[in-house]
Amino acid sequence: MTTLIENAHILTMDNRREIPNGCVLVDDGKIAYVGRRTELPQRAAPDAVLDGKGGILLPGFVNAHTHLAMTLLRGYGSDLNLQDWLTKKIFPAEDRLQTGDCATAARVGIAECLLGGTTTFSDMYMFMDETARVVRESGIRAVLCRGMTAGDGFEERLADATRLYRDYHGHADGRISVMLCIHAEYTNTEHTVRRIVDEAGRLSAGIHVHLAETRAEVDGCRQRYGVTPAQWMDNLGVFARPVTAAHTVWLSDGDIQILAEKGVHAVHNPASNMKLASGVAPVQRMLDAGVNVALGTDGASSNNTLNMLRETQLAALLGKLSAMDPTAVDAYTALQMATLGGARALGLGDVCGSIEVGKDADLILLDTSKPWWAPRHEAAAQIVYAASTEDITMTMVRGRILMQNRQVKTIDVPAAMEQMQTVTQHLY
Amino acid sequence: MTTLIENAHILTMDNRREIPNGCVLVDDGKIAYVGRRTELPQRAAPDAVLDGKGGILLPGFVNAHTHLAMTLLRGYGSDLNLQDWLTKKIFPAEDRLQTGDCATAARVGIAECLLGGTTTFSDMYMFMDETARVVRESGIRAVLCRGMTAGDGFEERLADATRLYRDYHGHADGRISVMLCIHAEYTNTEHTVRRIVDEAGRLSAGIHVHLAETRAEVDGCRQRYGVTPAQWMDNLGVFARPVTAAHTVWLSDGDIQILAEKGVHAVHNPASNMKLASGVAPVQRMLDAGVNVALGTDGASSNNTLNMLRETQLAALLGKLSAMDPTAVDAYTALQMATLGGARALGLGDVCGSIEVGKDADLILLDTSKPWWAPRHEAAAQIVYAASTEDITMTMVRGRILMQNRQVKTIDVPAAMEQMQTVTQHLY
Repeated sequence: MTTLIENAHILTMDNRREIPNGCVLVDDGKIAYVGRRTELPQRAAPDAVLDGKGGILLPGFVNAHTHLAMTLLRGYGSDLNLQDWLTKKIFPAEDRLQTGDCATAARVGIAECLLGGTTTFSDMYMFMDETARVVRESGIRAVLCRGMTAGDGFEERLADATRLYRDYHGHADGRISVMLCIHAEYTNTEHTVRRIVDEAGRLSAGIHVHLAETRAEVDGCRQRYGVTPAQWMDNLGVFARPVTAAHTVWLSDGDIQILAEKGVHAVHNPASNMKLASGVAPVQRMLDAGVNVALGTDGASSNNTLNMLRETQLAALLGKLSAMDPTAVDAYTALQMATLGGARALGLGDVCGSIEVGKDADLILLDTSKPWWAPRHEAAAQIVYAASTEDITMTMVRGRILMQNRQVKTIDVPAAMEQMQTVTQHLY
Repeated sequence: MTTLIENAHILTMDNRREIPNGCVLVDDGKIAYVGRRTELPQRAAPDAVLDGKGGILLPGFVNAHTHLAMTLLRGYGSDLNLQDWLTKKIFPAEDRLQTGDCATAARVGIAECLLGGTTTFSDMYMFMDETARVVRESGIRAVLCRGMTAGDGFEERLADATRLYRDYHGHADGRISVMLCIHAEYTNTEHTVRRIVDEAGRLSAGIHVHLAETRAEVDGCRQRYGVTPAQWMDNLGVFARPVTAAHTVWLSDGDIQILAEKGVHAVHNPASNMKLASGVAPVQRMLDAGVNVALGTDGASSNNTLNMLRETQLAALLGKLSAMDPTAVDAYTALQMATLGGARALGLGDVCGSIEVGKDADLILLDTSKPWWAPRHEAAAQIVYAASTEDITMTMVRGRILMQNRQVKTIDVPAAMEQMQTVTQHLY
């Protein structure tokens, strides 16, 4: 199966390369050609042709940190302080989760991802078999990890995480990969962290963590151990593994140095950090130090969307404001964080995140007919500062079109939404 | 002409009143009834019925500070520092503006407003006759003011502003109103401000100003006059008039007290203030002091949209972050700033901004069938934190539907966009 996407302005995102009136040839799910239409090598006619209509072709967004099934708790308890929100709303509802609930949540969440141009998400939650099933069915790409905290049943949870790795890593044509998880410093002990790091080493797995999300987390860690969460994890050998570290808000200069030296990937979650008033991650300082920075929405419970375009806009705007410098976190940089930066953070830098020959065809097409596209200027700036989700007219993963003309092709959205409304009745 | 809008969840925005499964009867452009369908008084069948399909009915957004024609400069010079951006990009381009350019810009800009659910905008710019013509044709509501700075030709500009007031104030079925303008402290003198205040008094006109947008502006004013821009304007009698003050970022506690005592309306412009790294307006502190706070996009040159839904989301998120308090600027408050707060700021508090009997029918309808509306929760929070522009399916001003199903009815959008592309060729 070959598909030719033509008549599009292409941002490859592997460097600042742009191809006006370019085309991409997809062959068996992979990118076989990217360049000008006139230079496309002679070959058999493609099986399908997709007209970009003068729009923009981008690699799909990579949502590098979310809790997908928390779409069930979207908007449940907005405008509360963190402690009230967690203890009075989120935790009691999560205690009532039943089999099947997370599959329902995954259907709604993945539909939202596809409508928003997200082709890969990295998930940390429970009931991962249900999520894996919906990933398989829907055609999206995902990195799954089972949340890991200390306490009763830790060894069972770790065994379950190991089983998940063996059951799913590399499955669904390679669309699913699995990482281990250290939920956070404050929910683990030195013992559990060492156990997880050992297990990750045996499996050659990466580790997904929450790191320095709130000031209280850092203060608590200093009281408990006399070091920052980044130092604590580093001392326990966590950063010898490939690590995706979400939030990274309250980092010292020394912490940033550790992340840079150990190649830890940071995931910036601006909407959630703003909404919960957690603070602002030092994005420009991390970039200057050479840290790879990705973007994520966090769960829909604290966002309240899985909208990566909004996250990218926020990353650029907040990056400038927090640095008090309008040249900080420019549009291209923000867009690269949302695409290639995310792929690299998830160990998928050779698989997706940019439009390069040999990579999987994870692509999105933006229509530019709405008024906010006039006049036309630098594509990256226009996407980051002006584009709207409705401009995304096509989402493709591994060469398969999963969303077209704002319709999700692989999920029955009205049924999933109705099912979700039913589920919430036993949750809260 | 009567129109019945039924089967909608109504947020009236005059208080925290919500009407599940409510309806609104529009009679001759005005709201004749708002309430439950079952309690609608018996009367003749309406001329038209609009099915809300279980969505949400809101008053239209009021964009209380923009420079509409700067849509011509959208995205022109992103990620630059303010001084380079103004002197190397914006000012030279503005010097090349020709007759007709601003009408083209207004068509594109108003189309974007209508697609974004904005029913009123407050404009500060030049070539106001052209903008007024497009306002008249398109059916939107606008408050127009001609930018006023000191220097050569000041008296001619003031005479032109006075003429505009006499030519347009209250025209187009009351959809157009006119204010005078003091561009800013740093672009005016004590003499020009006194002249404008006198003229505004004679006309009984309000005044639209830029106030304390940047730290440099406040520092400069202190050096020039030994007082803050708010004190300076207050001393010159500006605040004895109804005043709409845009930006209000660098306010002292004393400044906030002045705004509260004098009833000055503040307009928060979060996207522009973030993008230009100007700073964060003290929204929660202004609200606590009793200042009416509205929202505006500023010009598309520094936003880069006229998207009020995004502005409302930013106001809530940034309000929490800057106060480091997740309960600050809650969703309802942000939404009220975007609607009734804006109407009040423009002297239209009795005309629009809320769904109340006797007010003009400036209404928008949100469709809730996309995945980010599942599960359903508090309407205000869901609009502010999760809604997307594409959810807005109907925009009505004075009872006339100007946008429906994402199509603008009163502007030829493709023609306007093409014309804009042509115009930019002589601008830059």
